[in-house]
Amino acid sequence: MTTRKTTSQISSANDKDIVKIAGWVYLIRDIGKIVFILVQDRDGIMQVVCRDELTEDARALSLQDVIEIQGVVQVVKPGAIKDPQIANEFEIVGQKIHVYSKAATPLPLPLSDDIVYSETGLDTRLDHRVLDLRRKKIRNIFKIQESITRTFREFLSSNDFTEVHSPKIVATGTEGGTELFEVRYFDDTAYLAQSPQFYKQMLVGAGFERVFEVAPVFRAEPHKTTRHVNEYISLDFEMGFIKNQDEVMSLESKLLEVIFKNIRETYEFIMTNQFDSTIPDVPNQIPAIPFFEAFEILNRPEEGDLSPQDERDICKYVSETYDSDFVFITHFPEGKRPFYTMPSSDHPNYTESFDLLFRGLEVTTGSQRIHTYSLLVEKLEQEVGSTQGFEYYLEPFKFGMPPHGGLAIGVERMTVQTLNLDNIREACFFPRDRTRLTP
Amino acid sequence: MTTRKTTSQISSANDKDIVKIAGWVYLIRDIGKIVFILVQDRDGIMQVVCRDELTEDARALSLQDVIEIQGVVQVVKPGAIKDPQIANEFEIVGQKIHVYSKAATPLPLPLSDDIVYSETGLDTRLDHRVLDLRRKKIRNIFKIQESITRTFREFLSSNDFTEVHSPKIVATGTEGGTELFEVRYFDDTAYLAQSPQFYKQMLVGAGFERVFEVAPVFRAEPHKTTRHVNEYISLDFEMGFIKNQDEVMSLESKLLEVIFKNIRETYEFIMTNQFDSTIPDVPNQIPAIPFFEAFEILNRPEEGDLSPQDERDICKYVSETYDSDFVFITHFPEGKRPFYTMPSSDHPNYTESFDLLFRGLEVTTGSQRIHTYSLLVEKLEQEVGSTQGFEYYLEPFKFGMPPHGGLAIGVERMTVQTLNLDNIREACFFPRDRTRLTP
Repeated sequence: MTTRKTTSQISSANDKDIVKIAGWVYLIRDIGKIVFILVQDRDGIMQVVCRDELTEDARALSLQDVIEIQGVVQVVKPGAIKDPQIANEFEIVGQKIHVYSKAATPLPLPLSDDIVYSETGLDTRLDHRVLDLRRKKIRNIFKIQESITRTFREFLSSNDFTEVHSPKIVATGTEGGTELFEVRYFDDTAYLAQSPQFYKQMLVGAGFERVFEVAPVFRAEPHKTTRHVNEYISLDFEMGFIKNQDEVMSLESKLLEVIFKNIRETYEFIMTNQFDSTIPDVPNQIPAIPFFEAFEILNRPEEGDLSPQDERDICKYVSETYDSDFVFITHFPEGKRPFYTMPSSDHPNYTESFDLLFRGLEVTTGSQRIHTYSLLVEKLEQEVGSTQGFEYYLEPFKFGMPPHGGLAIGVERMTVQTLNLDNIREACFFPRDRTRLTP
Repeated sequence: MTTRKTTSQISSANDKDIVKIAGWVYLIRDIGKIVFILVQDRDGIMQVVCRDELTEDARALSLQDVIEIQGVVQVVKPGAIKDPQIANEFEIVGQKIHVYSKAATPLPLPLSDDIVYSETGLDTRLDHRVLDLRRKKIRNIFKIQESITRTFREFLSSNDFTEVHSPKIVATGTEGGTELFEVRYFDDTAYLAQSPQFYKQMLVGAGFERVFEVAPVFRAEPHKTTRHVNEYISLDFEMGFIKNQDEVMSLESKLLEVIFKNIRETYEFIMTNQFDSTIPDVPNQIPAIPFFEAFEILNRPEEGDLSPQDERDICKYVSETYDSDFVFITHFPEGKRPFYTMPSSDHPNYTESFDLLFRGLEVTTGSQRIHTYSLLVEKLEQEVGSTQGFEYYLEPFKFGMPPHGGLAIGVERMTVQTLNLDNIREACFFPRDRTRLTP
């Protein structure tokens, strides 16, 4: 019995072999005596030539039917297959077609990779997300995102970090109760974790010292922008026994270097050809600009926060001046960072914190954290009002906590900036926003 | 400047080197002229000898203080260090102690690895989970769990699966609305995903063909057993273009082989010495017993479901008869499986489904799924009552869905059975149950 092969498992070396392929009908081209079927599977598109009685079976097919075809591999002359989707220099001469599943007609949206959707088309695409993902280009977004996540894990594991899993149903928010989704938990009210912040700190203090987590986080912000969704995947790490936040930033710099090295090796062609994007430059030393100096670049006195436009302006400046696609903004003012952020000893009223901007967008937030119990209690009372409900978080600090710091990377934002996408929803399999709960 | 080293980064080859170590004070032994301090860091315990003035600093320490010590490595005679926690044949002669963080006294629970907690002590341990995790043995549970998860990902990636992330805030439950946690989603009511079931099927149908996910799932079951928690990590995979459920079971068998091969390589010593457990035997062919034949083993006519005691009895039989720690129970009756389960063509009223039992406990549920739109609609109407709210799930089936199947492994249960633990809560960093929302 012939077992099924995928497109990439067949090569010119299989010339004259009988093979079975399976996948979705991508295109049917009927030129009379011959019907060509393009079959798309998980790793490519194959041209199948149907002659004689098989033309009838071929003509009965609809786009997106799921089929299996048995046939003979036939090497063709270079360039003989004109379809731009196909790189192979061979095709299959069909012998038998089996239909697993018929697709209804018409399709709710056209599924050719050549199609350019307008920005307003995104909603329709997301309504029919599974069909939208049938386009190889759209699936490639997630192959590249997968590569980022895989590198994150492998890099940290090789640096002696432990992978952890913190609860998503929690009793209190990390920032004190705002922007939390409420969950009915038996007779109690609970919340969805807006970050693994408390738990990753606690696990550093539990003796793991270095931990990371890849998991969903939930933000009940009623935003309606191209940069926000209400559920996303956060790449978090936290490390103990650091001297200062520079160690966290330095580890992230090394991580970014490996992330884009790995993407370059596997996906550079796709990035250039399908996404009109380039592999970003990660300089040996990513520029770091203190918050208060960022305003000099913006040419205005320090006031308020950095707006999205400010972030784009700073990145433009850094790109032109330092040839870097990344910049750290450091030392945010105390009021603009959560209570657990370490105050700066060098710059009073500022904190040992940072954001990483990537091509105009914030993709990471990090800081050194307070590890002294008394200071943490003081800050909590000052900024949240009370320690009530935070006892479980405070306990480890009472019984020995090392200096520590960490960061959180939004992987969807990283993907968007890497691939030059317009909307963060493009980088979510099934985005959740203010108005979207399905699919 | 000397940078800090962890215990495992120092060896006898460092004899007479000046080093810095850091960690938690594990034990203080004051014998008058000399004070010994045992310092525990992420990968071991180091003995530090304090003499002269340093004895004063050493005497001022409390258990679980976080400190940094500079000193000189000194090789000792084999067996000279009597502490059973320490494998090193060297110690540090202390020169300087820096205290990062003082621990309050008394500790809410004793933290020696030798301590045997009674089963009733578990609640207290979980109340102070971070301190509980300071014991190396407890952290090792999660190192082994991490190994299982890492192997799951690596094995599937090398078999051409794509890692996916499905939303945890969902509009409908996979089993039709029972046992769901309710979330207030802006003006809507939503639920926490009790499984990525629908989404992983949809992503197979999106053209990925083979997907896996490692993510939390949420079950609002008011259970109070040693086998259930309300939030746990599910290792899910789903694969397209299968002929039957045997392909899913066969892939799981291979996966288990690699999981325990990897554990054997790194953790066999820990399993034997700390947990009184052995690496399970994964036979080349894991026995598979159809549901209706399982009752022959139990020596009673088929009626109702298999109870936990039945599962233990079957495993005992299989262990004695086939020398296997695992057994598949296949072909569950239609009423006992969700609506999307493929009916069996060989055994009417049964399904193409399976559980994997491991040393007496169910650790996996899997099946072939229905891929035909009309049959799926029929089953949904029959068993849930209506297709309303399921349109987003059904759409891909309308537009071409390959035959497919998959499974879900509860990683905490796998860990519990591997390490011979008494309670699933031991294998959750921060368990969530009917009465526990913190820490």
